[in-house]
Amino acid sequence: MTWYYDFMIIQPLKGTRDFYPKDMATRVWLFDHMRHSAKLFGYQETEGPYIEPFELYAVKSGEELVNEQTFHLHDRGGRKIALRPEITPTVSRMLAQKSKELQKPIRWFSIGPAWRYEQPQKGRGREFFQWEVNMFAANTPLADAEVLCVAASFLQSIGLTPNNIKLKINDRQLVEKRLTSLGVSSTHFGLVLKAIDRKEKIPASTFREMLHAAGLSDQQQQKLESLLSDKDLPDDAVWLRSVFDATKTLGFGNWIEYDPMIVRGLLYYTRTVFEAHDVKGEFRAIFGGGRFDNLVEALGGKENIDGVGFAIGDMVLTLLLEQNKKIPILPASPTKILVTVFDEKLVPKSIDLARQLREAGIPTELYPIATKLDKQLAYADKQGIPYAVILGPDEVKSDVVVVKDLLKRTQQKFLQRELVHSMESIAV
Amino acid sequence: MTWYYDFMIIQPLKGTRDFYPKDMATRVWLFDHMRHSAKLFGYQETEGPYIEPFELYAVKSGEELVNEQTFHLHDRGGRKIALRPEITPTVSRMLAQKSKELQKPIRWFSIGPAWRYEQPQKGRGREFFQWEVNMFAANTPLADAEVLCVAASFLQSIGLTPNNIKLKINDRQLVEKRLTSLGVSSTHFGLVLKAIDRKEKIPASTFREMLHAAGLSDQQQQKLESLLSDKDLPDDAVWLRSVFDATKTLGFGNWIEYDPMIVRGLLYYTRTVFEAHDVKGEFRAIFGGGRFDNLVEALGGKENIDGVGFAIGDMVLTLLLEQNKKIPILPASPTKILVTVFDEKLVPKSIDLARQLREAGIPTELYPIATKLDKQLAYADKQGIPYAVILGPDEVKSDVVVVKDLLKRTQQKFLQRELVHSMESIAV
Repeated sequence: MTWYYDFMIIQPLKGTRDFYPKDMATRVWLFDHMRHSAKLFGYQETEGPYIEPFELYAVKSGEELVNEQTFHLHDRGGRKIALRPEITPTVSRMLAQKSKELQKPIRWFSIGPAWRYEQPQKGRGREFFQWEVNMFAANTPLADAEVLCVAASFLQSIGLTPNNIKLKINDRQLVEKRLTSLGVSSTHFGLVLKAIDRKEKIPASTFREMLHAAGLSDQQQQKLESLLSDKDLPDDAVWLRSVFDATKTLGFGNWIEYDPMIVRGLLYYTRTVFEAHDVKGEFRAIFGGGRFDNLVEALGGKENIDGVGFAIGDMVLTLLLEQNKKIPILPASPTKILVTVFDEKLVPKSIDLARQLREAGIPTELYPIATKLDKQLAYADKQGIPYAVILGPDEVKSDVVVVKDLLKRTQQKFLQRELVHSMESIAV
Repeated sequence: MTWYYDFMIIQPLKGTRDFYPKDMATRVWLFDHMRHSAKLFGYQETEGPYIEPFELYAVKSGEELVNEQTFHLHDRGGRKIALRPEITPTVSRMLAQKSKELQKPIRWFSIGPAWRYEQPQKGRGREFFQWEVNMFAANTPLADAEVLCVAASFLQSIGLTPNNIKLKINDRQLVEKRLTSLGVSSTHFGLVLKAIDRKEKIPASTFREMLHAAGLSDQQQQKLESLLSDKDLPDDAVWLRSVFDATKTLGFGNWIEYDPMIVRGLLYYTRTVFEAHDVKGEFRAIFGGGRFDNLVEALGGKENIDGVGFAIGDMVLTLLLEQNKKIPILPASPTKILVTVFDEKLVPKSIDLARQLREAGIPTELYPIATKLDKQLAYADKQGIPYAVILGPDEVKSDVVVVKDLLKRTQQKFLQRELVHSMESIAV
């Protein structure tokens, strides 16, 4: 295997990550909680390919995501292939292909990798993971509320609280109604929404210029600014009020607040939109989502498939967790018991004990080399393995084993035939 | 979202797979068993990037895998990037980069995607998954035996038996000793091993030609053929005998048999080699592995890191499972209870019940639309959800709920305050 010669100089690609056991334990912990929250609400796990035909994204062309940020290659047949930059198009393709045979409403989630060619920075990589959650074919405030609560339930399960992060929601139809009442033409809605979406990231003058370009007079601009600063839910926000009421009954009302500034940049959202923001305001949006109801015409009008959902990337979220000291200290090793080997002659005795412990379902490591006992125990200690079993000639003679509790620094003798039973109660 | 327009014509790429809920349930079932077996033996999960610098594979150039089968692309800086065709180089790179600080012996496993540009066929795709298991820094027969038993333990856990699949093992040093005793020069070992590895896939005449090219006389060839047909473990196979004894004490002796024909195609194996074969002989090798001890010089001699391990792809294995009818029928939905909604007015009551059930940890779906009860129950039925809860005006009046057992076609009334407790015992 000559290629090992170059390992010392070959570094992983910029923006990719190596997950050593401790890092992987955190990743698994995070994904397990995503999976758990989704399943608690009845969502079914799906996955698609990680590589897709470039055309699946290309119709969105003109957008930064496709033209500048998508990793792509040509196969030997000249076909343009993309490493998926997001999961939604794959999910939607799968839905469209079997829309008729699928039971509705449809609750789906996915956890998997995506790639974007961006400048790597804190909270942003070129290879990252996304948790995508969608409910299809249920155009009700309750569906929107549920999806919000799946997100909140997950955030709660990983130790965050509404003091750390809030889900800010709005209704695009409400915004458009307001714009209409201000006299803004519907042809300008797109531009105005874009301006609102960017407002907090751009200077006030740029914001006003954007509104001006969308045809808003100074008076209209002032009225709009005043609407945007009113955080009380308007009386006529019937849909949003239903969403709020449902999130309260679902037990997550305190995670969600109305924010007239949230409109989301993507044009395809049609009603409820939301973004998660850290309360301290140190990060950009942690994630976002919303309702998109126009799949009906897009799919040729054969079937009305609307959807509501969100996608959470793992990198900014991990930053937020680190900042709030919510990443748990997880054992890198799954092992509960290290069975040491005393010497070559006694190896089979130790193997047999290890077999018995494993047959009882206890994750058990057997030291694979007959070396000094001290070295084996030091290894167990450094790996954070809680118990070590010792079986020397004296123990064999009297049919016992010594079990060391490496955390408490105590030890106990057990009859060999009672070891498994005793360890089952303390080590599982 | 204009890109939906093309969904009806955009198909997934050849050799990739869509995992709808039922397919995904099988994939998760398979991966969970891989993970469980690895952890039972104390292996720690790691993962690396799915894209790597092409050089990581390129030093192996000349081989089919890199030059013809690796998907690659160039980033905007002109750097050649590979979609990893296998996991081992990534694992080895990670090991090399932290070899000094890692506790030894090292037990690592990974489960993740890999890509190869091959002609898709039954059991072979362009995007597939591999389970990679390695023990490093333990050059003992016990380490080899353990790795074999991790594989056997997994095969057993998914319902296979030694009647379906066998792990055939050999020792390359034993083979080389035999070749030496036949008078074959060590410079020809590589060619002879290659011929043996291909023997069963090529005509007898081609095999003899290959041996002839490696300088073997007719007499040497005859002797070799007779050695290759002797399935009894030779008396001087000290290492292999120790491996066998350990696998027996570990409880998996009946999965493993000696086969003088197994030498593995890859040149880097140095001692124990093994391949899993279906007993009926309908498939090529299901997976393979072995011991590679020469990391020491390859890493510049600074540290002696040897290893033993295997990689199992998911696709041929799945074929074998299908053929043996071992793929379990798994529910596509995680939901235990569907809480129906009677009408708009009673929606909040149903939401509240769903919340209570979820807070007790029971995966619960709430029908998100106030529609006909029949439709909701038919949905539950088709999704395979075992219980449905009904809460109509009569039930609300008398503080009860109706629970339908959709499998047994029975129903029962519970006091509302007792629902969660009652369902905890039957639905979890």
